[in-house]
Amino acid sequence: MIAMGLDPGTICTGYAVLRGDGNRIIRLKSGTIRTASKAPLETRLLEIYDGLIRVIRENGPQEAAVENIFFAKNAMSALKLGHARGAILLALAQNGIEVTSYAPALIKRSIVGSGRAAKSQIGKVVRTILKMPHTPGEDEGDALAVAICHLNASRLVARQAKIGTSPKC
Amino acid sequence: MIAMGLDPGTICTGYAVLRGDGNRIIRLKSGTIRTASKAPLETRLLEIYDGLIRVIRENGPQEAAVENIFFAKNAMSALKLGHARGAILLALAQNGIEVTSYAPALIKRSIVGSGRAAKSQIGKVVRTILKMPHTPGEDEGDALAVAICHLNASRLVARQAKIGTSPKC
Repeated sequence: MIAMGLDPGTICTGYAVLRGDGNRIIRLKSGTIRTASKAPLETRLLEIYDGLIRVIRENGPQEAAVENIFFAKNAMSALKLGHARGAILLALAQNGIEVTSYAPALIKRSIVGSGRAAKSQIGKVVRTILKMPHTPGEDEGDALAVAICHLNASRLVARQAKIGTSPKC
Repeated sequence: MIAMGLDPGTICTGYAVLRGDGNRIIRLKSGTIRTASKAPLETRLLEIYDGLIRVIRENGPQEAAVENIFFAKNAMSALKLGHARGAILLALAQNGIEVTSYAPALIKRSIVGSGRAAKSQIGKVVRTILKMPHTPGEDEGDALAVAICHLNASRLVARQAKIGTSPKC
């Protein structure tokens, strides 16, 4: 299964496309869509959308995952984040890609084994898991982390369905 | 000039398309895009986007106006509003429609002469200005109000350019 992870932002949006192959996870593509911070918001949303559509067309993800937002620093930062998330969810829906959202603590636990891990640890562990030549930037690292979390969760659900028990979420 | 006004929301999005013809303002189309409130957020964003694209194609607006957001009740409502606004701004940018945002008090002043007018007054005054057979619903009324505000502001700028003074905003 090919899964996409996204870390939305109006200035930097991290993306990752991973293939789950049994117990192995292979990185197909990851990076950051950077927008011109002085451009009008609608132009930046168009850049995010167009960049994402390109990644979708080139890599064919079947499912996608984003971080759940339960908390934001303040209303204005939530509003900005919402704009980027809106453009991204729209692009995914237009391409028939189902989206699952995960709580930040669950993503961290899936990567480093603890929901309270420091943000700086994520990139390093992700690098090791995916055997990357360099530590990814923060947004790219977060997108890789949520994609890994999704592949692990999907594998768990598939395994539990196989042995006939319902998953305990 | 044909201008569009929008009042974004994930459940109800008000829209209005008006033609400014000298001092006259003619309503070409207005209404509300309602989404299935129990559907996933990405499906609702797709409904808003598709509905808006239809209105744009049928009515050919050249410019658009939305309310400025300086304040939101809380971070979660700002996040939701941001999603709808993101999908809308994207649709406008894709169609080359320039967007201007106006402060809520300026919109009210443009319609009822006071920035502190009650929300319930807006629809009634909008109905009179546009000679509508019925008072529009709240979201439709707000979209009509921001479109009227934009046409009035554009007229003012054009007039001031003609007499060689810069507009006092």
